[in-house]
Amino acid sequence: LATDRIVVIGGVACGPKAAARARRLSPETEISIVDRGPYISFAGCGLPYYVGGTVKQLEELWTTKFAIPRDSKYFKDVKNIDVRTLTEAISINRDEKTVKLRNLANGEESDLEYGQLVLATGASPASPPIVGLGLERVFHLHSPSEAAAIRELIEADEIDHAVVIGAGSIGIESVESFFAHAVDVTVIERMEQIMPGLLDPDMATCLTWEMRKNDIEILTSEKVIRLESTEDGKVSKVITDKREIETDMVLLAAGVRPNVALAKDAGLEIGETGAIAVNECMQTSDKSIFAGGDCVECNHRLTGNKIYAPLGSTANKHGRIIGSNLAGESEQFPGVLGTSILKSLGINIAKTGLTAAECARDNIDYIETLTPSEDCAHYYPGGKRFLIKLIADRSSQKLLGAQLLGPGDVSKRIDVIASMMTFGATLKDISDLDLSYSPPFSTAVDALAQAANHTRNRIKGTAQAVTGEYLKEKTETSEDFVILDVRQPEEFKKSRIENDRVLNIALTELRAAVKDTFQDKEIIIICKTGLRSYEACRTLRESGLLNVKYLEGGLIMWEYLKA
Amino acid sequence: LATDRIVVIGGVACGPKAAARARRLSPETEISIVDRGPYISFAGCGLPYYVGGTVKQLEELWTTKFAIPRDSKYFKDVKNIDVRTLTEAISINRDEKTVKLRNLANGEESDLEYGQLVLATGASPASPPIVGLGLERVFHLHSPSEAAAIRELIEADEIDHAVVIGAGSIGIESVESFFAHAVDVTVIERMEQIMPGLLDPDMATCLTWEMRKNDIEILTSEKVIRLESTEDGKVSKVITDKREIETDMVLLAAGVRPNVALAKDAGLEIGETGAIAVNECMQTSDKSIFAGGDCVECNHRLTGNKIYAPLGSTANKHGRIIGSNLAGESEQFPGVLGTSILKSLGINIAKTGLTAAECARDNIDYIETLTPSEDCAHYYPGGKRFLIKLIADRSSQKLLGAQLLGPGDVSKRIDVIASMMTFGATLKDISDLDLSYSPPFSTAVDALAQAANHTRNRIKGTAQAVTGEYLKEKTETSEDFVILDVRQPEEFKKSRIENDRVLNIALTELRAAVKDTFQDKEIIIICKTGLRSYEACRTLRESGLLNVKYLEGGLIMWEYLKA
Repeated sequence: LATDRIVVIGGVACGPKAAARARRLSPETEISIVDRGPYISFAGCGLPYYVGGTVKQLEELWTTKFAIPRDSKYFKDVKNIDVRTLTEAISINRDEKTVKLRNLANGEESDLEYGQLVLATGASPASPPIVGLGLERVFHLHSPSEAAAIRELIEADEIDHAVVIGAGSIGIESVESFFAHAVDVTVIERMEQIMPGLLDPDMATCLTWEMRKNDIEILTSEKVIRLESTEDGKVSKVITDKREIETDMVLLAAGVRPNVALAKDAGLEIGETGAIAVNECMQTSDKSIFAGGDCVECNHRLTGNKIYAPLGSTANKHGRIIGSNLAGESEQFPGVLGTSILKSLGINIAKTGLTAAECARDNIDYIETLTPSEDCAHYYPGGKRFLIKLIADRSSQKLLGAQLLGPGDVSKRIDVIASMMTFGATLKDISDLDLSYSPPFSTAVDALAQAANHTRNRIKGTAQAVTGEYLKEKTETSEDFVILDVRQPEEFKKSRIENDRVLNIALTELRAAVKDTFQDKEIIIICKTGLRSYEACRTLRESGLLNVKYLEGGLIMWEYLKA
Repeated sequence: LATDRIVVIGGVACGPKAAARARRLSPETEISIVDRGPYISFAGCGLPYYVGGTVKQLEELWTTKFAIPRDSKYFKDVKNIDVRTLTEAISINRDEKTVKLRNLANGEESDLEYGQLVLATGASPASPPIVGLGLERVFHLHSPSEAAAIRELIEADEIDHAVVIGAGSIGIESVESFFAHAVDVTVIERMEQIMPGLLDPDMATCLTWEMRKNDIEILTSEKVIRLESTEDGKVSKVITDKREIETDMVLLAAGVRPNVALAKDAGLEIGETGAIAVNECMQTSDKSIFAGGDCVECNHRLTGNKIYAPLGSTANKHGRIIGSNLAGESEQFPGVLGTSILKSLGINIAKTGLTAAECARDNIDYIETLTPSEDCAHYYPGGKRFLIKLIADRSSQKLLGAQLLGPGDVSKRIDVIASMMTFGATLKDISDLDLSYSPPFSTAVDALAQAANHTRNRIKGTAQAVTGEYLKEKTETSEDFVILDVRQPEEFKKSRIENDRVLNIALTELRAAVKDTFQDKEIIIICKTGLRSYEACRTLRESGLLNVKYLEGGLIMWEYLKA
C-alpha cells in the first residue's frame, strides 16, 4: 500500500541503514530512498584517505567487503528497496503525506506518497564570508567527486602547496592527505587555537607542535578575507587579515551545517542548535516523520543539553533505531558524549565529554590534569607515548571529559572513558577498573588508572602542580625561585630548561641532599613526565619544605610549549 | 616508633606499591619490606618476553624507565624504605606483633616488631603429581633466574624441542617464546580443551587451530605421568597416559597456588578458594594485618562470589589501596571481573566476566553469540580480524562476559566490555555507546555494537542461528537439508564446504531465485562471517520459508572446526 510506504530522503549513512533495518523487520512494506547525488551508501569519512592515497580506488568507499557496489541495483536485489539517485526532494506536504521529487537528470517533478517519512538529509560544508570561494581549485572535501578531483590534480603534479581554511577535524585530517603526496600545507584558523571545540588550548598547543615538527604551517587567530586567481580562474592566492599566501589549491574546511531547509519549509521544529529537533525515538515534531544523521541535533548524555555533533557512527545508530521504530518497535536513542577521534601525521587525537573550556563556561567546579603515558610496559619494545588530559568534577569526582593525543593507542583509552562516563563514573571507578593487562597491551598500572590516581592526588592536595604556561611566564619574570630538575645527570645533560634557576639533583640523590641545599625559596620540580617530580615533591614536603610544586606533564609539556 | 612500623612481607608488586604509597602519605613511619628472593619489584609478567628475546636484558624487568634499578638502595634513597632481600618471614606472632625473620644468606633469625603488617607473599607454581619434576631442565617460569636459565639453554642451542605441561595463560604465552627461537613445542593439557577456565570450548578450538597452523603440537585430554632423564639427569622424555615424547626441556605451567602458609600458621582466615580472605579494605581477619596481590582472593564484581585471579595489575591496585589504608585513609577495593589478556603467535586472546560454561554451571539463562569482526573500516588497509563471543543474560539482557580472539585489536574491545560490565550494562547500552569512530580506528558501526545488535536479534528471534558444531554433526548424518552458500561465485570457487547438500546462490541473486528453488526442506545458510547469511535468512523468511537458519560465525568458524 502506498499509504504504508516508507520514504527515506538521503542515501548516505542514516538513510540506507534505516531502510535496511525496516526491511528486515517489515518484509511487506514498500520502501524508497531518494538522494540528489549519484552515489548512495558511501563512506564519507573515508574521503580524506582516498585523497591521501591510503584508499586506492574511490569505488572502495561504496562497495561491500565482498566487492559488490552498494548501488540501486544492490538495494533492489538484496533488500527490495527502491532507490532513486539524482532525485531531489523539494518539498513535503504533510497533510497529503506526499513528497515532491525532482529528477535532476530531466527536471521532471512527481509526488511520492508516504506513510512514514525519514529525513536523512545530512549536512553541507559551511561557507564563511570569503570572497572568491567560487574560483577553480577551491574544494570542500564532502563528496566523492571532490575527492576524485583533488587527487587527480595532485597526481598530475599540479599542486605544490595547499591552503586549508579551518583547523577542525576535516582540516587536520586533510593535512595528512596532502603530506602523503609531499604537498606543502598551510592551515589557517580564525580562532586562537587549532581544533577549537574539540581540544582545550593546552592540548591544541601539543598538536600544533607535532604538526609544525613536520613543517606544516599553522596560522591561528587569522582570518581569510578573499581568494584571488590567475587569469584562467584558478585560485592562486589567499589573502588574510595578516598576509598573502600563494597557493595551488584551497580546501575549505570550516565545518558543516545541517541540511534543514526541507524540514523547515514543512514546518517541522528546528532545534536551538539549528539542526532538526527530534525526540528520543528520533521523531520530528510530526510523528510520521523521523530524522537522523547529520541533519539532527543530539542529546548530550552528560549535560542533557542539545548539541550538534554530526558523525558517521552516530548516523548509523540513528538509522538502526529509526528502522526499528518504522517497523513498530519502540526503540530510543539516549544521545551522545561528543566522542571524536582522528589521526594526522602519525598523531592520534581523541576527545570525549566536555572540554575544560566548556566546564568553565557552564560554571562547573572542575579539575583538569595532564598525564604523559605509554602504551605498554616500558621494557616491552614498540610502545608509544600519548598524553591524557582528564577533566573531572572537583566535588563529586565524576568524570566530565578527556582529551588524548600522541602516537600511542588513544582509541582504546578514549573508548573506555566514554563507556565509563555513560554511567556517571568517578575517578575512583577508573582506578578500580579491571582492565586487561599483559605487557604488550598496557602498563601494570593502566595509563587511565595512573591519570585517575594523579587527578585524585591533585584534588586531595597530595599533589601540587603548576602548568607549563605558568612556569614559562614565571621564568620570564625576575622572581627568585628554584627549578629543580630531578632527572638523572645523563638525561639532564641531553636536554634541559635553559634558565639560571635550574638545579639538577637526581631523585635518587634528593633525600640525602635535601637538608643542606634548600632555603625557604619556592621550588618548582621538573622531570620528564611529572612522575618523579611528584615523588620529589612529597620528599621535600616531608622534610618541611612546603613551598614546593611540580610541573605537570613535565618536560614533555615544556617542549610542546615551543609550538 | 617500632610500634608504628609498617612491615611488608613480599617485594614483587603489591608489597612495594603498598610501601611506596604509605610512604608518600606518611612521611614519618618506619617502613620495611622483606623478601626471600634476591630481586624485588620485578615484572614477573615480563619473564616470557625475556625468554622469547623481545626483552633483551633481564635487568630491564627491574629497572625504572630511566634505567635505575629498583633495588634496596633505590628504595632507601628515593623512598626511605628499608628493604631486606634474601630474608624469609618464617612466622608471625600476632600477640606480640612481631615477625620472625631468617636471613637466607647466613641462617640468622631475628624478630621484627610491626604496628601494621602487609602480606604480599604472592603465589608459587602448582606442582601436579608427576614423577620426575626434580630433573634438570624442568622449569617453571616464575622467577628471573629460571627465565635466565631457559634462555641461556636456548641460546646455547641445547633445546630443539620443549614440552609445555599445562595450556593456561603462561603455557600459551610461552609457546610464543619458544617459537621465536625456532624451538619445536608440544603443549599437553589434561582438560579437554586449551585455556580451560578462560575460554569456552568453541573459542579454545579457534585458538587451537591458530596454534596448529604454526605447527605447534597441542595435546588435550592427556595426562603427564612421569618425566624421564638421560644418565646425566637431564629430562629427555615425557610419558603421558597416551604416549612418550622425547624432549630437551619441560616447562611446567600448571597454574599457581597462593602462598598462604605464613597466614595460615598465624591463624588468619583462609577463604573458600584457598587464598587469604580479606575484607574490602584488604584487611585479613586480623585488622592490623593487610594482604594483597597473588596471595589473596577477590570479590567477583558480577556474581559477588570469591575468586582467585592472581594478576599483576590487580596486585598493583591492591598495593595502592593497602598503602592508603596503612596511612589512615579508608579506601576500598570493589573486586575484579576476571579480565585477562595474552598474546601468542600473533593472536591476541582476551576474556572478561563469566564464560558460558560458568553461566551454565550457575544455572543462568544466558545466550552466547559469535561475531567475526574487523579492526577498522574494510576499505582502510591494515585492519585485522578478530572474533567476538558475547555472553548475556537472556531476560535482563545484561552482559555477563566476553571472549575475543584474533590478530586484531581485542584489547580495546575487552576493556570497553569490562568497563560496561562494571556498571551492569545491557546489550542495548553497548549498541548506544558513543565510541570513537574514524576509519583507521573502527568500523562505522563499531564491532562491539555489531556483536551486541547481533545478540539482541538472536534473543528477539529475528536471527536464528546454528553453531558450527551443530552443522558439522548434521552433515555427518543422512538427513535431507540444504546448505545454502550465499557468497559470490568467485568466493565460492576459492573455498567451500565440501558436501553434496551445498548450493551456491549469491545474496545478490537470492531474492529473484527464491520462488523457484526451494521446497520445504530445512535450509542452513552460510557465508564468510554470518552477516550476509543473516540477511539471506530474513529474505527467505519473508517469502514464507520458515525452516531457515544461518551458520553463526560463518565459514570463519567452520574453518576453525578443523583444528
